[in-house]
Amino acid sequence: MELLRKRILQDGRSFEGGILKVDSFINHQMDPVLMKSIGVEFVRRFASTDVNKVMTIEASGIAPAIMTGYLLDLPVVFAKKKSPRTIRNAISTTVHSFTKDRDYEVVISADFLTPQDRVLFIDDFLAYGNAALGVMDLIRQSGAKLVGMGFIIEKSFQDGRKMLEEQGVRVESLAIIDNLSDGRIAIRE
Amino acid sequence: MELLRKRILQDGRSFEGGILKVDSFINHQMDPVLMKSIGVEFVRRFASTDVNKVMTIEASGIAPAIMTGYLLDLPVVFAKKKSPRTIRNAISTTVHSFTKDRDYEVVISADFLTPQDRVLFIDDFLAYGNAALGVMDLIRQSGAKLVGMGFIIEKSFQDGRKMLEEQGVRVESLAIIDNLSDGRIAIRE
Repeated sequence: MELLRKRILQDGRSFEGGILKVDSFINHQMDPVLMKSIGVEFVRRFASTDVNKVMTIEASGIAPAIMTGYLLDLPVVFAKKKSPRTIRNAISTTVHSFTKDRDYEVVISADFLTPQDRVLFIDDFLAYGNAALGVMDLIRQSGAKLVGMGFIIEKSFQDGRKMLEEQGVRVESLAIIDNLSDGRIAIRE
Repeated sequence: MELLRKRILQDGRSFEGGILKVDSFINHQMDPVLMKSIGVEFVRRFASTDVNKVMTIEASGIAPAIMTGYLLDLPVVFAKKKSPRTIRNAISTTVHSFTKDRDYEVVISADFLTPQDRVLFIDDFLAYGNAALGVMDLIRQSGAKLVGMGFIIEKSFQDGRKMLEEQGVRVESLAIIDNLSDGRIAIRE
């Protein structure tokens, strides 16, 4: 996705330890017009599938997911990162964050993730794939079917794709970062 | 907003203690087509203003905010409910949640809320207005100007509007709930 690639090269910033900051247009401040284009690209990539629900995880996944759901005219459900006591029929799992070096609980209501759902999961980043693993566990518990996972940005050197593909998941990333050494951003052509 | 009013009456559920659950279409599972219509209505209500940035707070505010920002072609920034160590130039404040009976910290980067910003704040609910108060404090600290606040649903019996209007804030709510007693949902015509 050339528009995204150019934007990351222009406005992204690379930091020590494989960190890419895109907080001026993706995950703190957001460019909604870019998010719409991202939604269009997800629709295109998963055009051959029979998805009937978009799923994401709070908070940075919500913007690309709602745009994708809007374009497909499908409901969007987001998993929550702690357990509000108000969630009925909660399904939960534990996710380990490498970035923050801690575990957190992810929760969704079984009312909105059911055996009838064919789920497209959308998120901002694929790194080690830990959040994605947690999502797969929620989907498995619910009896829903995972159709595929779409990420705005993949860090290819952190092996999330390998782990997901080994489990049979179809993965689509709109920008693949191969290297973040020395303050550079190497995006795959 | 008649579409929203009908949807709340159809799919909302009223619980003891003034609780309205709209988690099947607003704040857990979301209807993106309704969110787009909500965005259109916010654009209409704030048409006379000179807003140049949309602001919200994670997580349920993101969907209506991104739709509003998309329609206006304006950047959208969301305040975060805890302090990721990765936020540079953080501005923070403390918000008391009546629902959860606890305080939480709300953080935003001063990189994305500046004295040049004329802010439209969008959120899903206006109840006591505590989150809105916190947002006003962030905006005050940043030197930005608050143009107005738009809420999908206002609970008129919880006095958030009164408090905000006393401070000179323009408040627009797309559905105003006057009563949630006895399992009924009374929405103002």
